[in-house]
Amino acid sequence: MHNQSPEMKDCIEACLDCYQACLGTASGHCLETGGKHTEPQHFRLMLACAEICRTAAHFMLLGSAHHKHVCRECAEICDECATDCERIGDMQDCVEACRRCAES
Amino acid sequence: MHNQSPEMKDCIEACLDCYQACLGTASGHCLETGGKHTEPQHFRLMLACAEICRTAAHFMLLGSAHHKHVCRECAEICDECATDCERIGDMQDCVEACRRCAES
Amino acid sequence: MHNQSPEMKDCIEACLDCYQACLGTASGHCLETGGKHTEPQHFRLMLACAEICRTAAHFMLLGSAHHKHVCRECAEICDECATDCERIGDMQDCVEACRRCAES
Amino acid sequence: MHNQSPEMKDCIEACLDCYQACLGTASGHCLETGGKHTEPQHFRLMLACAEICRTAAHFMLLGSAHHKHVCRECAEICDECATDCERIGDMQDCVEACRRCAES
Repeated sequence: MHNQSPEMKDCIEACLDCYQACLGTASGHCLETGGKHTEPQHFRLMLACAEICRTAAHFMLLGSAHHKHVCRECAEICDECATDCERIGDMQDCVEACRRCAES
Repeated sequence: MHNQSPEMKDCIEACLDCYQACLGTASGHCLETGGKHTEPQHFRLMLACAEICRTAAHFMLLGSAHHKHVCRECAEICDECATDCERIGDMQDCVEACRRCAES
Repeated sequence: MHNQSPEMKDCIEACLDCYQACLGTASGHCLETGGKHTEPQHFRLMLACAEICRTAAHFMLLGSAHHKHVCRECAEICDECATDCERIGDMQDCVEACRRCAES
Repeated sequence: MHNQSPEMKDCIEACLDCYQACLGTASGHCLETGGKHTEPQHFRLMLACAEICRTAAHFMLLGSAHHKHVCRECAEICDECATDCERIGDMQDCVEACRRCAES
């Protein structure tokens, strides 16, 4: 891991934190709570956000030059996911992880 | 899987074929052959291509509206990977899977 | 991909088919239908099955000697997922993909 | 993420740290250094270790009961990867992340 700047390391951390928050919240909170939390559009967005965060981290760890495009897409999905988690409520951890990730 | 058009199904197949070709060729051929096949830039591109194909298929299976952006990025990386595999040679299966995937 | 026997190729195919069936059905059918289809235990099993199938395919494509253990775990989860999809009903494609994968 | 004990959280962290160490070292150090670092058996083990760590974390985040088997397999591969990284040398970060992950 000789090729990672401190900024890159922080960004990888933010992506993996957001991945954990989205997947952990979707499975441990949304599925248990049901109702608005399992609306198809919302739940899919949680899973899509988890996946793109995981992939963005993977691209940065690989050191691929394409990580910029993947990270840009990641920030967009994180942003949308944060807004949707706020709308439904009761998922502040996930909102914050998504916002930090979108900004990093 | 009630939400997939035939075009979507074909595109998922092309992505998973390309994922298989890239990862299988990288591990089973490039690592064994060495030399130009394990040039960092080339080998990373093979792994990045495998990962984005896997992720693009995931987004289409989820039915996420963001699959369009992920597929566009996927097509770009596939295209670059096909060109690089052609330059190094002896990886025609991988070239073809990448081209099919980039066009789908 | 010079290192794959025909049996291995079939097994990779079965795993990726099952991954597609589980993730596509979970997102495209279970989330839309709700009720028993989004019971936490069932839905988690669908996502876990998708993930282990994806990973088992990855290990076989890598040509890792550990693929045997991963495939054994994969067969167990597929079997459990097939039984659970049958219990809930209306997911015959997924049942069949899981059974084929468990047996391969 | 209401369902994770502190032990589980630590184990997820250890897995994701090990995933980062293995993939980051493989791409940023082994590919650049070549020689013994790109021996097929070694490099495949690094990639297999990264993948199983990623999957073990995924199973714990999902809250799947099968995480125990996946974590056991993960510990075995991490242990083997640590030993192999020590044999080749110059990858102490990766050795330590693998050992911590195997023990967690």
